[in-house]
Amino acid sequence: MAAKIPTRLYLSEDEIPKCWYNLRADMKNKPEPVLHPGTLKPVTEADLSAVFCMGPIKQELDDTTRFIAIPEGIQDFYRAYRPAPLIRAYFLEKELGTPAEIYYKFEGTNTSGSHKLNSAGPQAYYAKEEGLTSLTTETGAGQWGTAMAMAAGFYGLDLTVFMVKVSSEQKPYRKALIETYGAKLIPSPSATTEAGKAILAKDPNTGGSLGVAISEAVERAVKTDKCRYVLGSVLNHVLLHQSIIGQETKAAMDKYGIKPDIIIGCAGGGSNLGGLIAPYMGEKIAGKSNARFIAVEPASCPSFTRGRFAYDFGDTAKTTPLVKMMTLGSGFIPSSNHAGGLRYHGMNSTLSRLYQDGYLEARSEVQTNVFEAAVKFMKVEGILPAPESAHAIKAAIDEAMICKKTNEKKVILFGLSGTGYFDLSAYMSYNNKTMTDHIPTDEELEKGFETIPKIV
Amino acid sequence: MAAKIPTRLYLSEDEIPKCWYNLRADMKNKPEPVLHPGTLKPVTEADLSAVFCMGPIKQELDDTTRFIAIPEGIQDFYRAYRPAPLIRAYFLEKELGTPAEIYYKFEGTNTSGSHKLNSAGPQAYYAKEEGLTSLTTETGAGQWGTAMAMAAGFYGLDLTVFMVKVSSEQKPYRKALIETYGAKLIPSPSATTEAGKAILAKDPNTGGSLGVAISEAVERAVKTDKCRYVLGSVLNHVLLHQSIIGQETKAAMDKYGIKPDIIIGCAGGGSNLGGLIAPYMGEKIAGKSNARFIAVEPASCPSFTRGRFAYDFGDTAKTTPLVKMMTLGSGFIPSSNHAGGLRYHGMNSTLSRLYQDGYLEARSEVQTNVFEAAVKFMKVEGILPAPESAHAIKAAIDEAMICKKTNEKKVILFGLSGTGYFDLSAYMSYNNKTMTDHIPTDEELEKGFETIPKIV
Repeated sequence: MAAKIPTRLYLSEDEIPKCWYNLRADMKNKPEPVLHPGTLKPVTEADLSAVFCMGPIKQELDDTTRFIAIPEGIQDFYRAYRPAPLIRAYFLEKELGTPAEIYYKFEGTNTSGSHKLNSAGPQAYYAKEEGLTSLTTETGAGQWGTAMAMAAGFYGLDLTVFMVKVSSEQKPYRKALIETYGAKLIPSPSATTEAGKAILAKDPNTGGSLGVAISEAVERAVKTDKCRYVLGSVLNHVLLHQSIIGQETKAAMDKYGIKPDIIIGCAGGGSNLGGLIAPYMGEKIAGKSNARFIAVEPASCPSFTRGRFAYDFGDTAKTTPLVKMMTLGSGFIPSSNHAGGLRYHGMNSTLSRLYQDGYLEARSEVQTNVFEAAVKFMKVEGILPAPESAHAIKAAIDEAMICKKTNEKKVILFGLSGTGYFDLSAYMSYNNKTMTDHIPTDEELEKGFETIPKIV
Repeated sequence: MAAKIPTRLYLSEDEIPKCWYNLRADMKNKPEPVLHPGTLKPVTEADLSAVFCMGPIKQELDDTTRFIAIPEGIQDFYRAYRPAPLIRAYFLEKELGTPAEIYYKFEGTNTSGSHKLNSAGPQAYYAKEEGLTSLTTETGAGQWGTAMAMAAGFYGLDLTVFMVKVSSEQKPYRKALIETYGAKLIPSPSATTEAGKAILAKDPNTGGSLGVAISEAVERAVKTDKCRYVLGSVLNHVLLHQSIIGQETKAAMDKYGIKPDIIIGCAGGGSNLGGLIAPYMGEKIAGKSNARFIAVEPASCPSFTRGRFAYDFGDTAKTTPLVKMMTLGSGFIPSSNHAGGLRYHGMNSTLSRLYQDGYLEARSEVQTNVFEAAVKFMKVEGILPAPESAHAIKAAIDEAMICKKTNEKKVILFGLSGTGYFDLSAYMSYNNKTMTDHIPTDEELEKGFETIPKIV
């Protein structure tokens, strides 16, 4: 008889995977090439080199190398907080009365509070290796800014974070945390860049947006000596780094002979979802698995479930390269009442391709239902989930309840990408019932679609 | 040749200790009995039974049973978040350039953010087992209130938390977290108790104090059917529960053949320190170890280093039983400028006895130095420490730097009892250099000493 599965499935330090897995290498239909916005030709290393570090650029453009060795200097970084726990949700199963087995990979035990650190570390490492002295980035809710501040501090690089102004005012403690790690934080839009000045001239009281913050961070990077820009999601090199999530999960599950039937992740830009599913999706593409994969997005920003598959810009200012992806249009503005951080108009190109080809399912959820699932989860499992991660909890509970009806003992795995320590104002609004839901009308979506460039 | 020690020293689930260790059983000089404040005779089970649950009462009065089996229902609870990581501070060692080996036991990966959950779980478990339906408690900084809210929710008990009013206003997110777990939070002083009403009548605008909150919580418990009061530190049953920290640490270190030479913990009421050192102190008392033990307290509230060893009350209202302990007097009011939560006037009786008998050293630190150590630590080790825990970091760094001078390869172990997610306003004041230090004058201490009862 098999031994009882422990509540936490441990990997010892020497079992932490030493390679990232590049899912694109195993895809029959690969994601379409990224295009230069001026020439509409596939971007080259040279095109990207003024903005990004070379290590990540090479990874971004490499869709053939299956396994990429994690450099020793990054393995050191990972050892400071990994492996992340893979947890059997015994208490949730009991609460639901489901015959399903539920597991979740929890990426929130590091101080940044989320999986973002898995790519922040590598991006800072490559910058240091390439002789750079500083980096720039932007942050919205603050998880990526915190992760980059930690990574830059660790590798001894200066970091400037452009934080969406309204966020920096609403989340003074996020700001404090980023500054405590030694990064310079500038509320965006700011008078320190041309992009910021232009916006401020039009609207001095604007609260800012992620799109503007990206423009400021990129401008600062290209105008500064030995400085580059780093991005925390959407791009394929970020997904590559995040494959450590799936690699660890699979190593731990394989150790105990567990094969997930359903794998669930929340989807904003796609880095957490893409990282978690990578090795399992590779098996599915190879015909070795019948697992189902489910992306869960907010009903307020439904890029998978109601978006279009098209070449689009990554930022609202339309300055980035063009990516073929599921998109609501770079001009789509999600309702401001949404609490979580899954507010990006587009989606990673690899995941978009998998969705098109039927490998990946998607569903959208309204936030009050998501918070209901979050509170149910935290009361029995103990962990306070980030609102983003709670989208995955919602779908996991729904699937477990279907198993209860059909009396099937399926194995459900979901990604718990982070903690909600800095999202308690959202929990307050859920607790006191002032939280509302917004589902964009077709007309609202149409306005966004009109901003998608016409490229065949 | 010995294998390299991993960064994180893991225990598998079946290696989690199944007994608490009752250090008092092995002490030659045991802590003095707790006295009834009316009769001045040792308290009995019956004296305490109106206020506390019976399980904890029996543990409180038991100074002879060495190992106490952890009930299965509590082991289940512990498995939801334990073992806590024991981490080799390779990065800190490198940063300091010390030949010392530094290890820390990190209790902050659970959502309550600290070690408090280790006793909250058992106290809720015993209440449930004894047929109670509700509990009351108080909280200052909020860690204990969060832990009790999680534990009460887990075991299906109602909980009322009296939170010091100024804290509940300064820390709305702590309040939100406690309420999200389903507990009822009442800012103290409140009009819901006689104790609260009396204070409000004198001073309607008071911000409250821990002493008043205790009085309200106890009053509510004794006046409510099937309700008892729970306390998060100071008492010996709390230290017993916290011995899981030391038991796990020793199990992991023994697995790798590591023997600490210096063991360091921060000290407020003493539960974290007492729990960490318990099994190692047992060895020292038995003459099997020469390890040194160091308690680190804030210079603003120096109960070990400048207090008196005397019978004193646990609360400012002088209603609790009398405990022989190191104390500044229940009337001592620590400077309000102190950021951390180590503001209790007294100290656990077991630790006080060990200090008297020379087994335990103590030192005090001003907070700006403590935060300097915290920031140095977090930049290389990644973890944001609670200000309380950072007192231990300060001493660990100081000891490691002595090893650097003397070129000794000592093994230093310290307790990192929690995270600083809810203390970022203190980090902000450190960052912007508005943080100040206060060391009480002899005259200020004398005022506190005058409130100690005259008992021979």
